[in-house]
Amino acid sequence: MSDSTFNTLEEFKKFREKMNEEILARGTTNTKRFWALDGAVYNEGALDSKTKELMGLVASMVLRCDDCITYHMIRCAQLGTTDEEFFETFDVALVVGGSIVIPHLRRAVNTLLEIRRIQLNGESISL
Amino acid sequence: MSDSTFNTLEEFKKFREKMNEEILARGTTNTKRFWALDGAVYNEGALDSKTKELMGLVASMVLRCDDCITYHMIRCAQLGTTDEEFFETFDVALVVGGSIVIPHLRRAVNTLLEIRRIQLNGESISL
Amino acid sequence: MSDSTFNTLEEFKKFREKMNEEILARGTTNTKRFWALDGAVYNEGALDSKTKELMGLVASMVLRCDDCITYHMIRCAQLGTTDEEFFETFDVALVVGGSIVIPHLRRAVNTLLEIRRIQLNGESISL
Amino acid sequence: MSDSTFNTLEEFKKFREKMNEEILARGTTNTKRFWALDGAVYNEGALDSKTKELMGLVASMVLRCDDCITYHMIRCAQLGTTDEEFFETFDVALVVGGSIVIPHLRRAVNTLLEIRRIQLNGESISL
Amino acid sequence: MSDSTFNTLEEFKKFREKMNEEILARGTTNTKRFWALDGAVYNEGALDSKTKELMGLVASMVLRCDDCITYHMIRCAQLGTTDEEFFETFDVALVVGGSIVIPHLRRAVNTLLEIRRIQLNGESISL
Amino acid sequence: MSDSTFNTLEEFKKFREKMNEEILARGTTNTKRFWALDGAVYNEGALDSKTKELMGLVASMVLRCDDCITYHMIRCAQLGTTDEEFFETFDVALVVGGSIVIPHLRRAVNTLLEIRRIQLNGESISL
Repeated sequence: MSDSTFNTLEEFKKFREKMNEEILARGTTNTKRFWALDGAVYNEGALDSKTKELMGLVASMVLRCDDCITYHMIRCAQLGTTDEEFFETFDVALVVGGSIVIPHLRRAVNTLLEIRRIQLNGESISL
Repeated sequence: MSDSTFNTLEEFKKFREKMNEEILARGTTNTKRFWALDGAVYNEGALDSKTKELMGLVASMVLRCDDCITYHMIRCAQLGTTDEEFFETFDVALVVGGSIVIPHLRRAVNTLLEIRRIQLNGESISL
Repeated sequence: MSDSTFNTLEEFKKFREKMNEEILARGTTNTKRFWALDGAVYNEGALDSKTKELMGLVASMVLRCDDCITYHMIRCAQLGTTDEEFFETFDVALVVGGSIVIPHLRRAVNTLLEIRRIQLNGESISL
Repeated sequence: MSDSTFNTLEEFKKFREKMNEEILARGTTNTKRFWALDGAVYNEGALDSKTKELMGLVASMVLRCDDCITYHMIRCAQLGTTDEEFFETFDVALVVGGSIVIPHLRRAVNTLLEIRRIQLNGESISL
Repeated sequence: MSDSTFNTLEEFKKFREKMNEEILARGTTNTKRFWALDGAVYNEGALDSKTKELMGLVASMVLRCDDCITYHMIRCAQLGTTDEEFFETFDVALVVGGSIVIPHLRRAVNTLLEIRRIQLNGESISL
Repeated sequence: MSDSTFNTLEEFKKFREKMNEEILARGTTNTKRFWALDGAVYNEGALDSKTKELMGLVASMVLRCDDCITYHMIRCAQLGTTDEEFFETFDVALVVGGSIVIPHLRRAVNTLLEIRRIQLNGESISL
């Protein structure tokens, strides 16, 4: 019942994958360059990937983009983020961004519950 | 057909209630403090609650958060806001926030129609 | 599968039309004046309508409003915007607004595919 | 020391007045219509002007526009808003908009201090 | 008296140039790639550069970034944008973005006056 | 020459300190609670303070608040953030938030230069 416009992580991933294909097939060289850059900034560097994905998550929450939140939560979960770490991250987003973040937080917690169900089933969280 | 990601006020309330429970059960002390504060600022004071809820509604409209709009409309309706008052509030939001507010205004008017249907049935608007 | 909260352009148009009627019937003189102004600024002038609708599209993308994006894409398509022009417009929005625009871009490309299917059927894109 | 880009209310008013004149002299009919509408929505109606100006203030704070905050604070002060009412309004803006509002709140309080100094001098707050 | 945090176009250009040098000297490969991409999307293509710079201007106005507005106004002026075209562009930004855009519009018109003074002196507008 | 509306970190700190005092003296209990919460969410927990301050920095950059950026940069510098770490953080903010972030990035780099000058002088960065 409501992960943004998607009902399940599976639906989210399918639409994301399908449209990414269309965009990379039809877009300009600049579109493709932006896509490459969007991946590159989260790579291991002076800061590790997990820290960068947590940054991406906070940025997505204060800018209130459900799909971006879902994406970075999946990445953070893959990199071993615990529930305690997720909730402290949510707190930073909530205080910086205000109560307007709350509906997105509700959907983020719903996503977290789904992620943990998948992991409990012994499945891996993929993108 | 579209109150944000929710079809009816009933659906909105159920998801909101369920996720609030999860958040308050799993969140940190800071999360709980934010929740308390979010309630407290709308309490009767030098300004009455209705004025504060109308402020919350305008803020939610210019920040374009459908769930926040729905929440404050329910609260405003409980406190006796008339259609005339709602539409003058919408006008302030529309002029401050611009045409980008219009899709949210459409959904707000849809919500207003549902609220009035419920009230005409002699039911109270609860949260 | 997901043009904002709408599944098809037909659904988008029906809800938009129905709620516009309610708003213009119930709104104040100021509401109606805003509506008139919102139409007027895209009229042919020193700049042509297509340029103004493309501006409206970029503004809607960086402000991340799916319904506004859908509306301006339909208008741009009616005025003969090509795929190349759409994608160069998307690039400007993507670079100005950042990766937070990407989920809206995915839905915009989905809308573009639907617009082209309708046009290939020999139907006109109406509002 | 810092009311947005202005040092004093006097400076703010001079620049505002001068540029409004330029805009209304050079702008289109649509520009002038927007200006008229921007005044009209705060007029006495089903809701009184003070409530509407307080709404305008909250909207300006959560959208983080210093000049808009200054403008609505002057209007609110003219309509008799007390310090208690201002601070309860600030609280709503702070909780809805989050800590990102704080720098604007600091400047708003600075403006409030200047408004009260002017009023203590027996001068009226004009625009 | 106030082009954003800058008093004159000269000051704006000096700070911009100096800090761009620092950023490109100290930044990562990703920073440099973003800089290149930010230039590339405004290049002549299916749409001409002037249309793209006008898009950049509207996007900057609705996102309310004074420095970005100043930058795109200089580029638009270099590409022959007339006063009539500027004001129709301002109208689109004003209606999409709302009255919150007005303080930025005031500063934009101030910038336009400075640009025209420079051009009347027979000097070219450089960046 | 331009750290937001402040010329030096010293000026920023003085105004911040003075207005915080006014706000805590005049504000309501809710204002004070928000202030306490705003401090608490950055405390050491499951995530360390440096990670949280870096999150606060990214959030401030994508929301484009110069004073918030300055504040979190000072805190990050106190906690030992290196230039490499700062620039990778800037990259995440730039890609998530887009080119609209660039003017704030310029001022952030200017602030970084001032912070390093102070540290080279053997002085500590205080708030």
